[in-house]
Amino acid sequence: MALMTPEEFEEGLKALKPRVFMDGKLVDDIFENRNTRTVVEANKASYAWALDPRYRDIMTCHSPLINDVVNRYTHVSASIEDLVKKAEAGTFTAETLGTCIYRCVGYDAFHSLASTTWEMDRDLGTQYHPRFMEYLKMVQTKDLSVAGALTEPRGKRNQKTPDWPDPYLSLKMVDKNRDGIVVRGAKINISGAFASHGLLVLPQAAHPEGEEDYAIAFATPTDAKGITEVGQYSPYAAERDMAEDLEELGNPVFGQRETSMVIFDNVFVPWERVFHCGEYRYSIKLVTRFAKTHRMTCGGTCKVGFMNQIIGAAKLIQEYKGLENATHINEQLMEMVVLRETGRACGMSAATKGVEEPSGSGVFLPDELMGNVSKLNICNAFWRVMALAGDIGGGLIVTMPSMKELKNPEVKDYVEEFYSFGSDEPTENIMKVHKLLQHWTAGQHGVATWHGAGPVMAQKIMLQRVIDYEHDKNIVRQTLRLKEKKEKRGTNPSED
Amino acid sequence: MALMTPEEFEEGLKALKPRVFMDGKLVDDIFENRNTRTVVEANKASYAWALDPRYRDIMTCHSPLINDVVNRYTHVSASIEDLVKKAEAGTFTAETLGTCIYRCVGYDAFHSLASTTWEMDRDLGTQYHPRFMEYLKMVQTKDLSVAGALTEPRGKRNQKTPDWPDPYLSLKMVDKNRDGIVVRGAKINISGAFASHGLLVLPQAAHPEGEEDYAIAFATPTDAKGITEVGQYSPYAAERDMAEDLEELGNPVFGQRETSMVIFDNVFVPWERVFHCGEYRYSIKLVTRFAKTHRMTCGGTCKVGFMNQIIGAAKLIQEYKGLENATHINEQLMEMVVLRETGRACGMSAATKGVEEPSGSGVFLPDELMGNVSKLNICNAFWRVMALAGDIGGGLIVTMPSMKELKNPEVKDYVEEFYSFGSDEPTENIMKVHKLLQHWTAGQHGVATWHGAGPVMAQKIMLQRVIDYEHDKNIVRQTLRLKEKKEKRGTNPSED
Amino acid sequence: MALMTPEEFEEGLKALKPRVFMDGKLVDDIFENRNTRTVVEANKASYAWALDPRYRDIMTCHSPLINDVVNRYTHVSASIEDLVKKAEAGTFTAETLGTCIYRCVGYDAFHSLASTTWEMDRDLGTQYHPRFMEYLKMVQTKDLSVAGALTEPRGKRNQKTPDWPDPYLSLKMVDKNRDGIVVRGAKINISGAFASHGLLVLPQAAHPEGEEDYAIAFATPTDAKGITEVGQYSPYAAERDMAEDLEELGNPVFGQRETSMVIFDNVFVPWERVFHCGEYRYSIKLVTRFAKTHRMTCGGTCKVGFMNQIIGAAKLIQEYKGLENATHINEQLMEMVVLRETGRACGMSAATKGVEEPSGSGVFLPDELMGNVSKLNICNAFWRVMALAGDIGGGLIVTMPSMKELKNPEVKDYVEEFYSFGSDEPTENIMKVHKLLQHWTAGQHGVATWHGAGPVMAQKIMLQRVIDYEHDKNIVRQTLRLKEKKEKRGTNPSED
Amino acid sequence: MALMTPEEFEEGLKALKPRVFMDGKLVDDIFENRNTRTVVEANKASYAWALDPRYRDIMTCHSPLINDVVNRYTHVSASIEDLVKKAEAGTFTAETLGTCIYRCVGYDAFHSLASTTWEMDRDLGTQYHPRFMEYLKMVQTKDLSVAGALTEPRGKRNQKTPDWPDPYLSLKMVDKNRDGIVVRGAKINISGAFASHGLLVLPQAAHPEGEEDYAIAFATPTDAKGITEVGQYSPYAAERDMAEDLEELGNPVFGQRETSMVIFDNVFVPWERVFHCGEYRYSIKLVTRFAKTHRMTCGGTCKVGFMNQIIGAAKLIQEYKGLENATHINEQLMEMVVLRETGRACGMSAATKGVEEPSGSGVFLPDELMGNVSKLNICNAFWRVMALAGDIGGGLIVTMPSMKELKNPEVKDYVEEFYSFGSDEPTENIMKVHKLLQHWTAGQHGVATWHGAGPVMAQKIMLQRVIDYEHDKNIVRQTLRLKEKKEKRGTNPSED
Repeated sequence: MALMTPEEFEEGLKALKPRVFMDGKLVDDIFENRNTRTVVEANKASYAWALDPRYRDIMTCHSPLINDVVNRYTHVSASIEDLVKKAEAGTFTAETLGTCIYRCVGYDAFHSLASTTWEMDRDLGTQYHPRFMEYLKMVQTKDLSVAGALTEPRGKRNQKTPDWPDPYLSLKMVDKNRDGIVVRGAKINISGAFASHGLLVLPQAAHPEGEEDYAIAFATPTDAKGITEVGQYSPYAAERDMAEDLEELGNPVFGQRETSMVIFDNVFVPWERVFHCGEYRYSIKLVTRFAKTHRMTCGGTCKVGFMNQIIGAAKLIQEYKGLENATHINEQLMEMVVLRETGRACGMSAATKGVEEPSGSGVFLPDELMGNVSKLNICNAFWRVMALAGDIGGGLIVTMPSMKELKNPEVKDYVEEFYSFGSDEPTENIMKVHKLLQHWTAGQHGVATWHGAGPVMAQKIMLQRVIDYEHDKNIVRQTLRLKEKKEKRGTNPSED
Repeated sequence: MALMTPEEFEEGLKALKPRVFMDGKLVDDIFENRNTRTVVEANKASYAWALDPRYRDIMTCHSPLINDVVNRYTHVSASIEDLVKKAEAGTFTAETLGTCIYRCVGYDAFHSLASTTWEMDRDLGTQYHPRFMEYLKMVQTKDLSVAGALTEPRGKRNQKTPDWPDPYLSLKMVDKNRDGIVVRGAKINISGAFASHGLLVLPQAAHPEGEEDYAIAFATPTDAKGITEVGQYSPYAAERDMAEDLEELGNPVFGQRETSMVIFDNVFVPWERVFHCGEYRYSIKLVTRFAKTHRMTCGGTCKVGFMNQIIGAAKLIQEYKGLENATHINEQLMEMVVLRETGRACGMSAATKGVEEPSGSGVFLPDELMGNVSKLNICNAFWRVMALAGDIGGGLIVTMPSMKELKNPEVKDYVEEFYSFGSDEPTENIMKVHKLLQHWTAGQHGVATWHGAGPVMAQKIMLQRVIDYEHDKNIVRQTLRLKEKKEKRGTNPSED
Repeated sequence: MALMTPEEFEEGLKALKPRVFMDGKLVDDIFENRNTRTVVEANKASYAWALDPRYRDIMTCHSPLINDVVNRYTHVSASIEDLVKKAEAGTFTAETLGTCIYRCVGYDAFHSLASTTWEMDRDLGTQYHPRFMEYLKMVQTKDLSVAGALTEPRGKRNQKTPDWPDPYLSLKMVDKNRDGIVVRGAKINISGAFASHGLLVLPQAAHPEGEEDYAIAFATPTDAKGITEVGQYSPYAAERDMAEDLEELGNPVFGQRETSMVIFDNVFVPWERVFHCGEYRYSIKLVTRFAKTHRMTCGGTCKVGFMNQIIGAAKLIQEYKGLENATHINEQLMEMVVLRETGRACGMSAATKGVEEPSGSGVFLPDELMGNVSKLNICNAFWRVMALAGDIGGGLIVTMPSMKELKNPEVKDYVEEFYSFGSDEPTENIMKVHKLLQHWTAGQHGVATWHGAGPVMAQKIMLQRVIDYEHDKNIVRQTLRLKEKKEKRGTNPSED
Repeated sequence: MALMTPEEFEEGLKALKPRVFMDGKLVDDIFENRNTRTVVEANKASYAWALDPRYRDIMTCHSPLINDVVNRYTHVSASIEDLVKKAEAGTFTAETLGTCIYRCVGYDAFHSLASTTWEMDRDLGTQYHPRFMEYLKMVQTKDLSVAGALTEPRGKRNQKTPDWPDPYLSLKMVDKNRDGIVVRGAKINISGAFASHGLLVLPQAAHPEGEEDYAIAFATPTDAKGITEVGQYSPYAAERDMAEDLEELGNPVFGQRETSMVIFDNVFVPWERVFHCGEYRYSIKLVTRFAKTHRMTCGGTCKVGFMNQIIGAAKLIQEYKGLENATHINEQLMEMVVLRETGRACGMSAATKGVEEPSGSGVFLPDELMGNVSKLNICNAFWRVMALAGDIGGGLIVTMPSMKELKNPEVKDYVEEFYSFGSDEPTENIMKVHKLLQHWTAGQHGVATWHGAGPVMAQKIMLQRVIDYEHDKNIVRQTLRLKEKKEKRGTNPSED
């Protein structure tokens, strides 16, 4: 069986030596640094679940590619059933981690590359598809974690790429030789690269003729020469660094979500890991196929799991406070549930309307319209859920003292007394649940939901392309028995 | 084959002589009265589609009950596939009629009775289920249209039923004898009774002990002795009565939607048509099973069809005005599509999560949570779609003159000229599309959507009952490793 | 005193013979036709209030122009206090009529012309201002009602005016001679022209060079040769025509709102009534000054009055049904009140921030930003209030029968019984209040609110022009002590 | 003149020795601790502005009480003009600090006490008002900063206060003697107590008979014996503690907002500082008068100032990215401005409708309805503004690295390059503006806005009390000429 144990995962990862900076300093050991550690933990959990009989069905599947059981996060969907399982896995991992399963961007990038390399080969006679499938076989066989990377710094949006003063604001091929290619630039907002074996790099955007050097996709180890990661550093990261005990934190083990800017300073990629190189017309296909797959994930599945945590925490606080019969809070909880279930229905609809794309490729992708609808809805829904939970949780979400005060002999009795709500629940529990809601409602999750899988405008642009109004117009024509245009008389009275 | 032609339907209906009043007068002939005629036309269409090869798959199915092909609107769903087809039929009929398919309330009542009579018989040893199935066989064999009836006038909501000064504000059994029962009261807001062969009557609400005489369900012909219908009469009905030519109207053939108050003044119902009589604990089951089925219909299926008409009309007006590239209108159209697709996904989710209920009954009903979520979402969505379409359609929706002016020799040239938008579309078409949007955005559809299948509060009450928070709370407990309660120390400092 | 009695108003109006068509026929007598009559009644009320000691303070003021008491609706605001009174008058007239006071468009056009003619004369040396003030003196002295007219049919929006196949889709001067000008075209969506003494015509839009013939403003009697009015004809108009007794209707005396298309087929206007003729740069000033004044009116004042009616009706129904303690209904009523008061605060803010414009002109206009904000907010608020009232009112708003049934001997007892809600309120009252809510929530008011004073996009375009972000940016610069730009180092690594 | 310099303020404060804990440790020096320091800085600024000719008019006024110029934050409003100035001051301080001016709760508590002590004395013959005015004279003369304190821990909400296991979950008088009273309990969520000279304590809620010992209001120095403060400790506090340079932070000088739990463990208060003691019927008056005053502040004034910062930052990012012409961003900026101006209009309306309360007291308080409307609106508006700004700001708000990386020789060139957007703005500026938006959109401000001045439900409860529907119902009665009730006929058919 191709599955590693979580310990094997961690051990194996130690062979890599990525160059990572955070908070102005080099990270000596990503397994020790508390913030990079959260990513290790999250990915590690995905290895544990795959071996756990309770979750095996959702976290693994049989791969015809290597004729073995593989972690689902390395499998390209080959049916609607696969897409449905993919959606369910997204919710399960999210509700259990309370943060990203950092493997999903790579997972979605596998889908996009499997589909588009097949199409390039069919149309252009290239040999990318077998090359990519060999790479994927290796990933499955070795049970690797792969982070995906698309977003780029970019220059002024009112200028074209070639007009930017710095050509590297989008990742660019700077050399191409017999052995492979050399790239320079950066990918930003990259989730979980710290604790992944490899990176899978796609273009961020369509590239017109003349931008061939930007039309590149490839895989690389995370510690390839020339790669530097600069990790995000938020107030939540500072809090984690400051904590005496991780139990003080809102999401003790898995944290908020860690990303980094991944800099490629003349990084070499051998040809067997290059899956797109200059065929600029296909860049947009790589992007949009990734996007709809990832929007189903971010819109209709992982945020559903996050909402489970938020709803559970709000419900517990309601009970701690003795507010079970408060109509307005029950209304608010219900509104959260309605938003969650609507999100789930849209995500599931994206899966059940999925299609093989292109026909004959064997790759199933979610419905474009519903993938985008899922994400668009959840953006607004998530802010609303944050606000509702923030209302139920109360001012304490913001104003609570450090959990350390529970160990401070001079104030711990006061804290125990005055944050008890007069309930027989341990005050520590009450404070921890507030801390969890602080994690969800007073941190980065609102903005992150906006931008994960692309901002709202990206969904709208895609919807603009795929919505077809002909059916609707024809219904109107039929209902009203509209006349043909030729019957129009002249309306310019000067002709009369 | 059990299917009637549309002509046979109309011919057969003429055998019935319902007593109908409208606008203060007796309706002599429901086939001639323009407003009752719209109901005849809508139901008639359902017979035509069943025979039309294009729609046969959606409008008919094989009934094991009579081992024959039947109209889907007489079939009790026996699988998730049936529920999915039911949802699709709801959208198809709605987008084609631009109004109710008046058979859906009866269709949903069939589901509720099939399920609940089975359960009553199992629990109480009654014989309602075979009696109901005999009735349903007759309906299928004769291919009848049946209107459902639940809503009642009711008295003061802050009083209990027995405290109302008038005991008949809820439909009441006033006599019971060897042959059957006699009922007095009224059902209000009843869609399509004019042009149906029969009525299927359920309780509107739960009935506690002491209200046995209100715990009744039965079928009756629409022209039974003692039944009087008082039809609604809205401005749109007046407009229809005033028209010289139905083509002047927003929905020429099928109208807005016609309902009536159905009065039962000591109406006799023979035992073979009584399906619930005094078993008050089961009244609420009849109601809630109907409700979730009907909320899937009203929430996730028929409003989707209506939105197709609205979106199509708004799109045509955009084109007539030369506004294809106006960003704000494209945004508004997109928002309508997102609302529509979200509605569709929720309705479909209610179907695909459906279950056999009770287990063993053979009756499949939609998921309770999603049935209610569908309806709750669509209530707000529909008002929003009306508003958006009203913005695109412009002031003309409100201010347009009668279509008769196009035939008025003194002004028709002006009307042709000044309502042309300078486009080469016939002005008549332009005005008709505005008239259709008037039908949708300046009439009864907003309020009707609120209240069809029960007001928002009814969905909320049901959601309050079915939402389960345990899973969510457990996720939080696990994430935070919350302590058991017993560890709580005393917080009353007087104990210290 | 310059004030007419209502009887004198009606008598005086009879001297005019406007050519009006409605529902495909000539209106012989606008005082007899039930739909044109509603406009007569509404304007007539404005004469009654001016003489009523209870309302005199709000409906009249002293005009320095003629040194006499005049109806406020003929007075150009000369102070912030005047603007505040203007806002209060808008709310009072709206809540009392339940429809437009049809004089407000003219009232707002007076403001725009007084301001802009003054500016044209100052800048260009023209003599429009004294000419306009002479006209206004005449209006005040004779106490006339004047309807304003701006909106035009227009051609394809993606074409410029000169490219339209029909040059008359915007009102155009077709001749100019010693005596005056001749115009051809139409104004659409014109409120209340039927029952006004005169029309005051402004351009609808900015006009660039080359469109001088469209840059026109003037006054004309409503029965000038060449003017034809084609009245709107909605379902509500049909209902009024069909009624046996006006008491059957939702707003018995004053109706929904009547507009017409006013066609100018080579209408002559003498020079003493021409106030703008070819000075195309000033067309936009006429439009925007009218717009902000009218948006304060439509946004922050008259809709507040309408909401009073809606809230009152919803509250009465709550009481009839015995739902005084239903939390969800109290929440909905409260939401309506919050929306109303927010609207009122914005309108009042537009007034209290008003300024003399141009400085020295003596004309006070509302604040541009707040005038537009008022209207933008109320558009959404009004749909929401409709929806909320529709929820409280219940299905009966849509499904109620004709009030005639209360006189129909065969059903009146049933109707009395079953629409009583078991309350001791006369059923007739209960039905009338539902009919009033039908008027507000199931008719043209949502769309009319969108478009009265210009659609949402018009407010947005104006806001885009007037919002200034410098203050906000400076605050940020100061808070963060941002550096000057010159410190920027080169970022193109090829320079390194 | 009674005004201190900022330096005198800081010097004077050093005389106090409050007992403060934060992050599990005693705060040795509130002037050195970085988080308590932010409060010192904010209050200090209020002394600087009062002496600054640019802001003197807004930050000071003449106090008749001591016949001298005082800081406005110590003055009880005696006119509508004062209320208007109060509103303007709230916006000015908020936009300049980007956090609370911590003196506003005390300022609003002065209003409530001045009004209610006057009323108690009038009604009960007590002598609280002169006692309070003596205290206020002292505050004005010494130019002190006073923090207000209302919110309490409270026990189970479904139990009454006397049923809580711990009687001190609400602040309670535990002794009363010739010299004064002794209190035990805590006030939570208290803004700015660290750096204030004194505390002004009011009840949080109404107290019925039997809760006399909870009906207390008083002033005390912040370092009175028995007072302990436990400071909030959020991720943002940890970040501040971790920073090498405060310039790394989103709001470098003034921070997010600091609160504490203030514990009263048998604190003695002398009678000359007790302003309410047992007159339980007046507790609710103290609360509601404070509430409406504070809701005007929080709803319509300070959030307006915060929005200025947010809008400014979003606008700058739009420009840095070269997105000035992006329609969707201009729409979002406009939506923020509309929300801000609506908030401002409501706050101003609360001020301009203010009244002397009670009549004769000389104290002016904002309009109750509009005070609550302001707060209710801004709650939702602020979340929406956060979301919009989060969309414009982009993923970088969440994912940006520490500003320290700009000084890290190994990565600073990369950071300069890749976060430049290709603009000539210093990258440091770009990162700082993102950091400011992180402060606003990815921290505690959403939840804080919900709960500052009481949660949404508190506003709703108050609105429920003050809304009067009679005017609205009467308008409906008049429009419809509703009949008197006596005309109702019997509807019980058994009487027929």
